[in-house]
Amino acid sequence: MHERLRNHFEEIVDLTDQEFAFVLTQFKTREFEKGDFIFQNGDPIKYAYFIVSGLVKLVYHDENANEHIVSFAMEDWWESDFNAFFNRSEATYSLKCLEATRVCYLTLEGYQKLSKGLPKMGIFWLQKSNGGFMSSQRRILSLLTTNPKERYEQFLKEYPSLGQRISKTQIAAYLGVSRETLSRLHS
Amino acid sequence: MHERLRNHFEEIVDLTDQEFAFVLTQFKTREFEKGDFIFQNGDPIKYAYFIVSGLVKLVYHDENANEHIVSFAMEDWWESDFNAFFNRSEATYSLKCLEATRVCYLTLEGYQKLSKGLPKMGIFWLQKSNGGFMSSQRRILSLLTTNPKERYEQFLKEYPSLGQRISKTQIAAYLGVSRETLSRLHS
Repeated sequence: MHERLRNHFEEIVDLTDQEFAFVLTQFKTREFEKGDFIFQNGDPIKYAYFIVSGLVKLVYHDENANEHIVSFAMEDWWESDFNAFFNRSEATYSLKCLEATRVCYLTLEGYQKLSKGLPKMGIFWLQKSNGGFMSSQRRILSLLTTNPKERYEQFLKEYPSLGQRISKTQIAAYLGVSRETLSRLHS
Repeated sequence: MHERLRNHFEEIVDLTDQEFAFVLTQFKTREFEKGDFIFQNGDPIKYAYFIVSGLVKLVYHDENANEHIVSFAMEDWWESDFNAFFNRSEATYSLKCLEATRVCYLTLEGYQKLSKGLPKMGIFWLQKSNGGFMSSQRRILSLLTTNPKERYEQFLKEYPSLGQRISKTQIAAYLGVSRETLSRLHS
């Protein structure tokens, strides 16, 4: 599990064995079954998760109990309710495993300790955060400018492997289109 | 102008006079008139901008020449085509001044030099980037879960001063609703 984490960091920054050992002091690992909640709406959020293997969805339930998918995350992605994580508050979202999922996770204290103790890790987090921001901005633009058909095609093009692993109902909830609309496009 | 920039940094990190002098070596300042483009779609993007005063909109023109507003930015906000800025590439968006606007701006080299030379600044950028990411995620959720009326009310609640300074046509383009829909809500 740790090798995958190291390879992930080293896509952006080089780490010596000693540095990586220091990084690892801040991480724990855990396994979840398909269908498990890693956290649910209302839980205090203490951790950010690196997905070693598996697939999760971050969801929001509106007042009518409709489920909206904020994001999917699979191998090599980071996920949390980041607003709650950074503000040490309670989850607005829930994080559910769509497949059996293994994670490495750390606390906000660990995140900050690594940023300050190892400037390379600060650089790493900054690149990841900027990447997340730009990806969100592209999604906003997609929601503003595309019709359901275009949005579905964009999704398959941007995340070809997700198209194989996720049901159409889930993809519809992510794209903000009805299951019926998506079925028509797909048939 | 520099005092506003310093106050802005010091909301997150304390800077000595010497440290702020180092920060300033990386910034230039410029003024734009209302209606000016700070950059346009296709321009190479060399700078990120801190808005000292004024108001700008970041827009995307789709293939039918419809304008979509990716974001507004006013005093104390940062704006650029960040994807192009971080990848040293050309703008997908255009940045236009809705009011006379004064900016402090820096290059990617400056951004990186400050992050590496002054770890506090790395912490500052990281907090700003995380903030931008979380704000984008809230907007995605708003686009997925709300109707035009709710979205308009959320906008006025989150950005009361923008509601005063921006025309309804502009707000409609930002919210992804038609001007007619917004007028009906407002009357």
